[in-house]
Amino acid sequence: MKQKKDCRRSDCPISFTLEILGDRWTLLVLRDLIFLNKGSYGDFLNSEEKIATNILANRLKRLEVEGIVTKSKEARNRAKYIYELTEKGIDLLPLLLEAIRWGAKYDPKTAAPKEFIQRLKRDRDAVIKDISSRLVRQNKKRP
Amino acid sequence: MKQKKDCRRSDCPISFTLEILGDRWTLLVLRDLIFLNKGSYGDFLNSEEKIATNILANRLKRLEVEGIVTKSKEARNRAKYIYELTEKGIDLLPLLLEAIRWGAKYDPKTAAPKEFIQRLKRDRDAVIKDISSRLVRQNKKRP
Repeated sequence: MKQKKDCRRSDCPISFTLEILGDRWTLLVLRDLIFLNKGSYGDFLNSEEKIATNILANRLKRLEVEGIVTKSKEARNRAKYIYELTEKGIDLLPLLLEAIRWGAKYDPKTAAPKEFIQRLKRDRDAVIKDISSRLVRQNKKRP
Repeated sequence: MKQKKDCRRSDCPISFTLEILGDRWTLLVLRDLIFLNKGSYGDFLNSEEKIATNILANRLKRLEVEGIVTKSKEARNRAKYIYELTEKGIDLLPLLLEAIRWGAKYDPKTAAPKEFIQRLKRDRDAVIKDISSRLVRQNKKRP
């Protein structure tokens, strides 16, 4: 977590992705944004996995610095910040879907909805298109 | 890394996947196995990113416990262990491919081969099929 930006380990694309997203929490914040319609610090904090406040602050900052989310004041409550995915963030959807697919396949206690997994197997491209379009529309609706 | 198996955070499939793979190193070991034809402790240790020996030992153990890799003695040199992906491990290929695609797209210094990325965009299913078949064949060849 504390490595400097100029200490990159290699030019391998997997290494690059892991330098930004390789931990137990970051993809859960992205899950909240993509699938659970969450957008505020308090929303993320209240998720089932109970992320610690210092870890959450650190990950949100990193996501912002990397251009994966943007942070802006909410229209109705100027004291509240709202986070949204950028195009770079929305582009992580296929990776999240593969994390879902693998987790759903190998966790006997998975809560992944069966119909969603079936649809993902049958027509992954349509699932990506539908969710991406929704996220882009959501972003546009906000001032 | 030290959490117990029964302290699962939730039944979310993304959380399940991250509990096993959510760190900066594990997917690099899988990359070595899948794309770089590596299979021994020494091979992984020598990779460009220079994983520390204690981290490598910890991750290989976890991958073995989770049934993602198997460890066996090499036929020609019984003192040497060789690691191989199980079916559960080969099933992580789509996730790795998405990590490659995102990293290659957003890292200006990426070393990802252009032709491979183009092929991945054009015909992801064929790429998955080709690499999976090769991995299954490799496993069968070993005694």
